Amino acid sequence: MKSLYLKADESIAPYVIFSGDPWRVEVLAKYLENAEHVAFSREFNTYNGEYRGMPVTVTSTGIGAPSAAIAMEEMYACGMKVAVRMGTVMSLKDELLGQFIIPSAAMREEGTSKTYVPEGYPAVADIGLIDCMNRTVAEHGKGYYNGINCTMDGFYSQMKESRLSKERGVEIPDTFARLKRLGIAGIDMESSCILTLASLMGVRACIVTLVTVLENLKDELRGQERTDAEDLLCRVVLEGLYKLHQEGAQKA
Amino acid sequence: MKSLYLKADESIAPYVIFSGDPWRVEVLAKYLENAEHVAFSREFNTYNGEYRGMPVTVTSTGIGAPSAAIAMEEMYACGMKVAVRMGTVMSLKDELLGQFIIPSAAMREEGTSKTYVPEGYPAVADIGLIDCMNRTVAEHGKGYYNGINCTMDGFYSQMKESRLSKERGVEIPDTFARLKRLGIAGIDMESSCILTLASLMGVRACIVTLVTVLENLKDELRGQERTDAEDLLCRVVLEGLYKLHQEGAQKA
Amino acid sequence: MKSLYLKADESIAPYVIFSGDPWRVEVLAKYLENAEHVAFSREFNTYNGEYRGMPVTVTSTGIGAPSAAIAMEEMYACGMKVAVRMGTVMSLKDELLGQFIIPSAAMREEGTSKTYVPEGYPAVADIGLIDCMNRTVAEHGKGYYNGINCTMDGFYSQMKESRLSKERGVEIPDTFARLKRLGIAGIDMESSCILTLASLMGVRACIVTLVTVLENLKDELRGQERTDAEDLLCRVVLEGLYKLHQEGAQKA
Amino acid sequence: MKSLYLKADESIAPYVIFSGDPWRVEVLAKYLENAEHVAFSREFNTYNGEYRGMPVTVTSTGIGAPSAAIAMEEMYACGMKVAVRMGTVMSLKDELLGQFIIPSAAMREEGTSKTYVPEGYPAVADIGLIDCMNRTVAEHGKGYYNGINCTMDGFYSQMKESRLSKERGVEIPDTFARLKRLGIAGIDMESSCILTLASLMGVRACIVTLVTVLENLKDELRGQERTDAEDLLCRVVLEGLYKLHQEGAQKA
Amino acid sequence: MKSLYLKADESIAPYVIFSGDPWRVEVLAKYLENAEHVAFSREFNTYNGEYRGMPVTVTSTGIGAPSAAIAMEEMYACGMKVAVRMGTVMSLKDELLGQFIIPSAAMREEGTSKTYVPEGYPAVADIGLIDCMNRTVAEHGKGYYNGINCTMDGFYSQMKESRLSKERGVEIPDTFARLKRLGIAGIDMESSCILTLASLMGVRACIVTLVTVLENLKDELRGQERTDAEDLLCRVVLEGLYKLHQEGAQKA
Amino acid sequence: MKSLYLKADESIAPYVIFSGDPWRVEVLAKYLENAEHVAFSREFNTYNGEYRGMPVTVTSTGIGAPSAAIAMEEMYACGMKVAVRMGTVMSLKDELLGQFIIPSAAMREEGTSKTYVPEGYPAVADIGLIDCMNRTVAEHGKGYYNGINCTMDGFYSQMKESRLSKERGVEIPDTFARLKRLGIAGIDMESSCILTLASLMGVRACIVTLVTVLENLKDELRGQERTDAEDLLCRVVLEGLYKLHQEGAQKA
Repeated sequence: MKSLYLKADESIAPYVIFSGDPWRVEVLAKYLENAEHVAFSREFNTYNGEYRGMPVTVTSTGIGAPSAAIAMEEMYACGMKVAVRMGTVMSLKDELLGQFIIPSAAMREEGTSKTYVPEGYPAVADIGLIDCMNRTVAEHGKGYYNGINCTMDGFYSQMKESRLSKERGVEIPDTFARLKRLGIAGIDMESSCILTLASLMGVRACIVTLVTVLENLKDELRGQERTDAEDLLCRVVLEGLYKLHQEGAQKA
Repeated sequence: MKSLYLKADESIAPYVIFSGDPWRVEVLAKYLENAEHVAFSREFNTYNGEYRGMPVTVTSTGIGAPSAAIAMEEMYACGMKVAVRMGTVMSLKDELLGQFIIPSAAMREEGTSKTYVPEGYPAVADIGLIDCMNRTVAEHGKGYYNGINCTMDGFYSQMKESRLSKERGVEIPDTFARLKRLGIAGIDMESSCILTLASLMGVRACIVTLVTVLENLKDELRGQERTDAEDLLCRVVLEGLYKLHQEGAQKA
Repeated sequence: MKSLYLKADESIAPYVIFSGDPWRVEVLAKYLENAEHVAFSREFNTYNGEYRGMPVTVTSTGIGAPSAAIAMEEMYACGMKVAVRMGTVMSLKDELLGQFIIPSAAMREEGTSKTYVPEGYPAVADIGLIDCMNRTVAEHGKGYYNGINCTMDGFYSQMKESRLSKERGVEIPDTFARLKRLGIAGIDMESSCILTLASLMGVRACIVTLVTVLENLKDELRGQERTDAEDLLCRVVLEGLYKLHQEGAQKA
Repeated sequence: MKSLYLKADESIAPYVIFSGDPWRVEVLAKYLENAEHVAFSREFNTYNGEYRGMPVTVTSTGIGAPSAAIAMEEMYACGMKVAVRMGTVMSLKDELLGQFIIPSAAMREEGTSKTYVPEGYPAVADIGLIDCMNRTVAEHGKGYYNGINCTMDGFYSQMKESRLSKERGVEIPDTFARLKRLGIAGIDMESSCILTLASLMGVRACIVTLVTVLENLKDELRGQERTDAEDLLCRVVLEGLYKLHQEGAQKA
Repeated sequence: MKSLYLKADESIAPYVIFSGDPWRVEVLAKYLENAEHVAFSREFNTYNGEYRGMPVTVTSTGIGAPSAAIAMEEMYACGMKVAVRMGTVMSLKDELLGQFIIPSAAMREEGTSKTYVPEGYPAVADIGLIDCMNRTVAEHGKGYYNGINCTMDGFYSQMKESRLSKERGVEIPDTFARLKRLGIAGIDMESSCILTLASLMGVRACIVTLVTVLENLKDELRGQERTDAEDLLCRVVLEGLYKLHQEGAQKA
Repeated sequence: MKSLYLKADESIAPYVIFSGDPWRVEVLAKYLENAEHVAFSREFNTYNGEYRGMPVTVTSTGIGAPSAAIAMEEMYACGMKVAVRMGTVMSLKDELLGQFIIPSAAMREEGTSKTYVPEGYPAVADIGLIDCMNRTVAEHGKGYYNGINCTMDGFYSQMKESRLSKERGVEIPDTFARLKRLGIAGIDMESSCILTLASLMGVRACIVTLVTVLENLKDELRGQERTDAEDLLCRVVLEGLYKLHQEGAQKA
């Protein structure tokens, strides 16, 4: 039977990669062998395939924690055992532009995970999976940072100025100032929900993000540099998963 | 300049119709004359066109309030003056199957609108716009209900059983029992955020939903009945907007 | 049997008008034919009577949501079907002095309605009843505004300077600045509670207020102008109810 | 200049007695010498007078903390130094029927005092004033109890069944069960707000209540027994204040 | 059987004195006749003994409400009937340096008592016990103040600057400014928890503190002056308890 | 200069081990070479020493997050760079008796860390440090578990029945049932505060706990088995730190 929103079934692989953007799934699918399209339903675009013989599913979450939770839930119902969200991220640390943030945990400022567990429950990544990703990044000659990201619900109320925010006198930089004092590395809209659900599911999960933009768009990767970076991101995630697969690591 | 996510610009019409599902925008666009594709970026699929000479834009929000807020914000930046979210809805009132819920207001149980205003602020629809929609539904021989909907962030934690909810012993029917005691008519994942933002923007807004499914999927429209219902939904929304347009109603 | 506080019984009319001030009920009663005094118990002063043949009850709520909830509850127990709170109001919009605010909904910043339903539940007025009142105001040559009011518990801690607020350095204008950024039209102490309870009861309700004073008393109606305004308020409320009565409008 | 709601001025005495019911002020005024009516404005009925030569003002708060706060604020602006709320109370302890509860503090479950100070701030009575009242009660051959009362905003949602509470399936006895586990002696609608404001003002305050009814009306004083009890309550409050006055006690 | 943490048993006296510092218990024990060591387990150092024939236990709470609650719970299980916390305190009122604060109640800003009862429940001391302590202080020629203390969990985040607070830009004086506006007399880390638990237990309790330091260490008692003060504190607490014992006061 | 409570200074080592019980520090100190006593002040007992040439400080936190935060703050002011809390723990998973829980993160249900950062901030351990401890445990032939612990403020209100909890009808097993549904491995009173502060400080930290007791004392290690276990705990912590020291790992 097909799942309600993603139209996925038991053909799903134990290793699932989540992209925010359904259209980037098309790019990601090109790195797979024997890629087979499952469905593009709502904002969820899904392919099954293989990477060096390891079965992998790639799909999308859309923007925001509510749809990310749906993607996680349906993949879990289909048998997912390991989840990696990959994406580009806005960083509050200037020195990380072009580097990887693979957060050890995320600050829960979105509403969706609160419908599952109280706010004090930590949105923490799997340490074995992080370790695989860290080593893969290092092997590709890049830096990684295992700090704390913050996940929020309001893009134009908290992270980026808009016509409305200006009319209302909302000070977006206050968000950045507040989070910097907490040492937050990056801001996104899905991570803390994905990590929280994974803990409850007993699914090993982590977030692999590449910093392509700094707070409030003050600097960003562009052109070939960005294309190369996104290519690297795809390869790191797949290689990192492969490392885990090979080492047959058991969740502690 | 194109907006960040929707890739929209000042070509956007003052009347904007939002569908949750980006693929249903394709259906909706067929009702427009001179339809022109703007973009299908992320989960946002956008067309400009005309209906009986009235300029209309149709676009999508994706699932959940965070992406709905982005769609509202970017459309507002592009000049939107009237917003109608249309969609199918799960109802808690059995007698409404196949009827219209055009809520006068929505209960705010999602996290995104809280990043804009405190929880006590009402997510209320525009009464003139509701009136236009009510009359249009009646002219099409259907019933309408102007009660209160509830908007939530957690589909599989609050509205529908899942593998995880069963493993954790979460009682989904408790949500329905609680909301029924409050007289809630329908449950969705975007409405209270859209209405709250519209009030802050000074944009006239309402929600036009057709009940195609009852709580926890206990009954639903199927086959031709459902196809007809969705066709009617499109026509009602366009005709209702046209009524407002013709009457040149001014927001009080 | 008489109700506990208001000493009311089944003689109560389906149409009930609530004044905050028990003494203004005396004025209002003069507009009724066959007025009969029910009781003046605690702060609740109640008359039954008729207006153009329509049965009407007028009573008072006293100041604040706790006593307003008692009045609503006892009137509901006695058979009330339509509730209109009338009164003068402090406005945050200078241009509304002498005009009517008939709010479509109210922001819930009082504690009483929270003992009934969670804070996210909207305090929304009945759109058919608003429509009757809007048309009546227009027929009397006045302007009306259907925005959002805010209801609060603390008069001298939030709305008006006092000896204590000055000693403690509390900045009352901060309240006004905050609410203006939300586009709030007027501030009162009962409306959101009355509207919330009416929704739960299935009673049609609205608030008809006349702006006689601007924020922090910076301008106000005085003398004959005020007397005329209050007379107009009484007539609008009674005529508006009569319009509803005549049209035999059914609650959607 | 007259105060806004109570129409009081500097003629007010330093000793102020508050009744909930404006009509009981008429009874209380009969115990005063040289009683002079100040005003009966809104739900606030005020007299100045003397008791054994001590200047006393008696006034009313109406029902609920919002109007009680207004009475406290305006009396404070007029020079009040000592405040005693007197009234009858619903008790959760059966053995206290006909006895006095003079609470050492009150649980803050009303919304008004929260507009002044955070919820953790204690609503505590003046220990010297309590001591005067305790001794006066004992001299009159009655028992007193200095426990903790609870103050709430919702009479028909928390303290007493109603048509609405029954329709909604709200279990009023749950309130009593919860508060009994906390050892709460009595329930009312004004005390915690009065005590909190008095602390902030530096006004000495206490609550003198007579138990005339048990939870959910399961037993009550009636007829002559009740009339005698209310007479005793008036005399205790006046004598207790006189004791304080005589002893010229200074607030620590 | 010995209690879990304190290793106390039914030999405990009905009168228990709590010191924060386990080592000051050694000093306090010297004031007792027939002192017998019970245990020094974890941060809990306990002696039984007599004072003028009255049986007394002295023990310690350690720093913070969690361990203070453990001490209270185990002493209650062992038969405690009266509890006095004694200690030195940081005051926000300069004129109280070297004087006694015997608070009538405490503001609950610690987390432990919230695991027992909701935040609105008052942390109030026993008025008869306060009265005994007040009189004892006066007999020793010192001043006492029966205001409100505030109890907090974060010493270096709320009460005192640290390396971390400076790095993070946390403004400790903001705490003092905020509490001064509420008229708070002193700040500590245990009182509101002890008073709350005592109320729930039906144990008579109060806090006797001597001001040895002003906010943020701006002035303090030193040398012989401090030694004398601490000696006085011990004697006042023991004499005050003896007064209660002698008067055989019954809890109201 | 000596720190305020611990009486520590710059002699403190970069590697600090925290025990809850000040008396167990004495045992731990025996594993050090050249151990030097710093102070036993309040509940803080501190030694400096060496382990295989690596400088180490051992100290105590006392019970509860408020005193644990003080210990962390003062050690940080003295130069601490790596923090390990060691202790025995109550587990909710029966199969872990006698095994190690080295949590990847902790659920924040204590009040102290909330005085530093909002509740959604994750209390997460350092993954490199966890890895060193995991490997050390494995080398000693024991099992480890890297799940999530929960930290609470109320021992006798949440974790263990007491005279008071029984009198009040508080159901302690409800805590265990609730936390088991979240998959929580162990319960303690300090961990989430220590991990939160370490993140803010940029100090690498983890928690190494040995399960010696199951929920509500239903089973526990006793006698020699327990003595051996505690000896193993000391050796694992020291060896794990030494591994980190040798590998010269840099915090990512």
